[in-house]
Amino acid sequence: MAQNYPVQVEMEQGKELFLSGVNPVGTEKVCLEEALGRVLAEDIQARENIPPFDRSPLDGYALRSSDIAGASREEPVTLSVMEEVPAGAVAQKPVEAGEAVRIMTGAPVPAGADAVVRYEDTTFTEETVTLSWPVVSGSNIVLAGEDVRAGDVVVEKGDELNAARIGVLAALGYPEVLVYKRPLVRIISTGDELVDVSGELTPGKIRNSSAYMIRAFLQSWGLDARIYGIVKDEKQEIRRAIEECMEDADCVFTTGGVSVGDFDFVLPSMEEAGAEILFWKTQMKPGMATIGARKGRILLAGLSGNPSAAAAALFVLCLPALRKLCGRREWELPMIQVMLPEGYGKASPGGRILPGRLRIQDGKPCFITQKHQANGMISPWSSCNLVAVVPRGSGALEKGTMVHAYYLP
Amino acid sequence: MAQNYPVQVEMEQGKELFLSGVNPVGTEKVCLEEALGRVLAEDIQARENIPPFDRSPLDGYALRSSDIAGASREEPVTLSVMEEVPAGAVAQKPVEAGEAVRIMTGAPVPAGADAVVRYEDTTFTEETVTLSWPVVSGSNIVLAGEDVRAGDVVVEKGDELNAARIGVLAALGYPEVLVYKRPLVRIISTGDELVDVSGELTPGKIRNSSAYMIRAFLQSWGLDARIYGIVKDEKQEIRRAIEECMEDADCVFTTGGVSVGDFDFVLPSMEEAGAEILFWKTQMKPGMATIGARKGRILLAGLSGNPSAAAAALFVLCLPALRKLCGRREWELPMIQVMLPEGYGKASPGGRILPGRLRIQDGKPCFITQKHQANGMISPWSSCNLVAVVPRGSGALEKGTMVHAYYLP
Repeated sequence: MAQNYPVQVEMEQGKELFLSGVNPVGTEKVCLEEALGRVLAEDIQARENIPPFDRSPLDGYALRSSDIAGASREEPVTLSVMEEVPAGAVAQKPVEAGEAVRIMTGAPVPAGADAVVRYEDTTFTEETVTLSWPVVSGSNIVLAGEDVRAGDVVVEKGDELNAARIGVLAALGYPEVLVYKRPLVRIISTGDELVDVSGELTPGKIRNSSAYMIRAFLQSWGLDARIYGIVKDEKQEIRRAIEECMEDADCVFTTGGVSVGDFDFVLPSMEEAGAEILFWKTQMKPGMATIGARKGRILLAGLSGNPSAAAAALFVLCLPALRKLCGRREWELPMIQVMLPEGYGKASPGGRILPGRLRIQDGKPCFITQKHQANGMISPWSSCNLVAVVPRGSGALEKGTMVHAYYLP
Repeated sequence: MAQNYPVQVEMEQGKELFLSGVNPVGTEKVCLEEALGRVLAEDIQARENIPPFDRSPLDGYALRSSDIAGASREEPVTLSVMEEVPAGAVAQKPVEAGEAVRIMTGAPVPAGADAVVRYEDTTFTEETVTLSWPVVSGSNIVLAGEDVRAGDVVVEKGDELNAARIGVLAALGYPEVLVYKRPLVRIISTGDELVDVSGELTPGKIRNSSAYMIRAFLQSWGLDARIYGIVKDEKQEIRRAIEECMEDADCVFTTGGVSVGDFDFVLPSMEEAGAEILFWKTQMKPGMATIGARKGRILLAGLSGNPSAAAAALFVLCLPALRKLCGRREWELPMIQVMLPEGYGKASPGGRILPGRLRIQDGKPCFITQKHQANGMISPWSSCNLVAVVPRGSGALEKGTMVHAYYLP
């Protein structure tokens, strides 16, 4: 076989090869009610201030601070209450010297007034309010634009729309926004040993768990992932499935059939379907048997049939490209330094991926792993929010060793 | 007004009052494809091992390690290859002395064999395989039940179904699972100052951003949240809206109208609608103006009209109760200790809630806040994954002070 692609790449190289040339798949308008978790495809510049006017943050009296500069318990100052401004209304006229306006939480501070004094700090009648101490100009006034200033870019192209950002967009009057389309990923499971989740487990068979796991990972990352089904270990069958999926998908992920054995047909099937192989196999463990490929703008990944190897490859090799495909501004996952309180007994000549959890112990961020952990195991991924990367060439790691870990979204 | 409920509660007390007596709202079956993010309502006990049989993790030869105990480069041992076992198949007969079986990744290790040697470490013909060194019994065999043992409880009642757990359920043959129903929350916005997101901003008006933000927060926490709309500051209108929402909702959340002013009708409206007030007002800032109430098993929360105060109350006072309502086993949010690298300038007599982000700096977990931050601001919540709790009675906090923070799900 004449290979014109890199083999046994380092994990960083595999990630970069998979990432290169990836672009978002298009945009669409969605209403704000459907925007949660979507990625914004336009910069949102505030057209107005938030708040839109100087407002009172409490119920009280708006007045001129200079009027009560000399107020004291011995010589209190009494002002005439001219009107009442509930939230949603505006004062009829400016506040003049010797005057005050009764004002409700959220109401605009009337012209002329430069301070608000809360009810509880005054004595009042229907027509008057009496102050026994001075206040500073500006007291209890939330200035227009304090939260967001007109002209500011408040949410950026590539930001994920979370609850607070949706609140900001609502406040600024955006009932709909332009977002990136969710990429469509089709997942093909290969392997004569596979039966579906509801199938009977006859000798030698295992259930197709990877497709469900991969679909759920992709869904949780904002992609539209669909299970194609199980395909037998036959080159033409696999090729046909890949071609069918490429008709509408932005990504085609396969599981199984990616190593060197007689029944590993995924790589030649991808080639025959016209895909360019970006790399075959990596040095990292688990996830050594992984294919990266591309046909035009369609990404293809051949993942291991082993669920934990598939999960490792998904996180470390595929996720940055998938985040970029989703339109995210920050497609690299944040990395943090964490301590291994128990160390790690095995050497990692080609680098190693470990699922774990962040725990702060004695003020230090620690990487907590499940006690019993082997390469093929999926259970340690169940409660994982960190993916540690043990660098290639590492020996066994002592207690207290610091490693870098991806911090999961 | 004769008050028979606590006022100005500490945040911990408010949380506990809101939490007491809360129970999940019911269960339903969902198929595995729709299970992501749902909370499991039954313990799942493995009915089978994962893997279900001793399997080979690679392509190679299954053999009896005793046969090659004396193998060396000088005196290699040649075994007869009896058959080939692809993944999904089983060997026709046990491996006897002097025999080997060609075996593919994922295939069951035949009876009699106690080790697998990878292709690359052998020389072979169609009918024979030659080994030049011995291997330990058990080499390259993944034992049945290594990942999950039959009888183990693998996912617990109250666990959220994430991708890896869905993979485990698929592997164990659960095409559908019992989950807790999503609680229905209806959100009522009160205030004469409010116009809808697509409305025109006339003087004194602001847009109803809180409802969209609260809906999105609740959605992201797994609840079914629906916006009722804007209700004027009139007691009968608010009461009617609350009563209408209580017809089918598990929770009714209002915004606005919760302080002491002349136009604050939410509390009496809740009382007239038959709700028992659990508390009114808290000591924490923001979020002082919050009502907790209950009618039968329906939770009611009167949140501030100020979005950041509403967000603070949602996180600190309501979220544990909402997580319990969703059926989660762990309804308290995890808390971590973080350092304030810049300190905090203001005193917090009644306790204070600050949104921020986790960053590891010099190996220490730090709480990073937006530079410009005031009580009323929603923008600091946009990129928040920590909510710090400054304890009541705190003065200004020096650089390097440690505080507890909720670590957001």
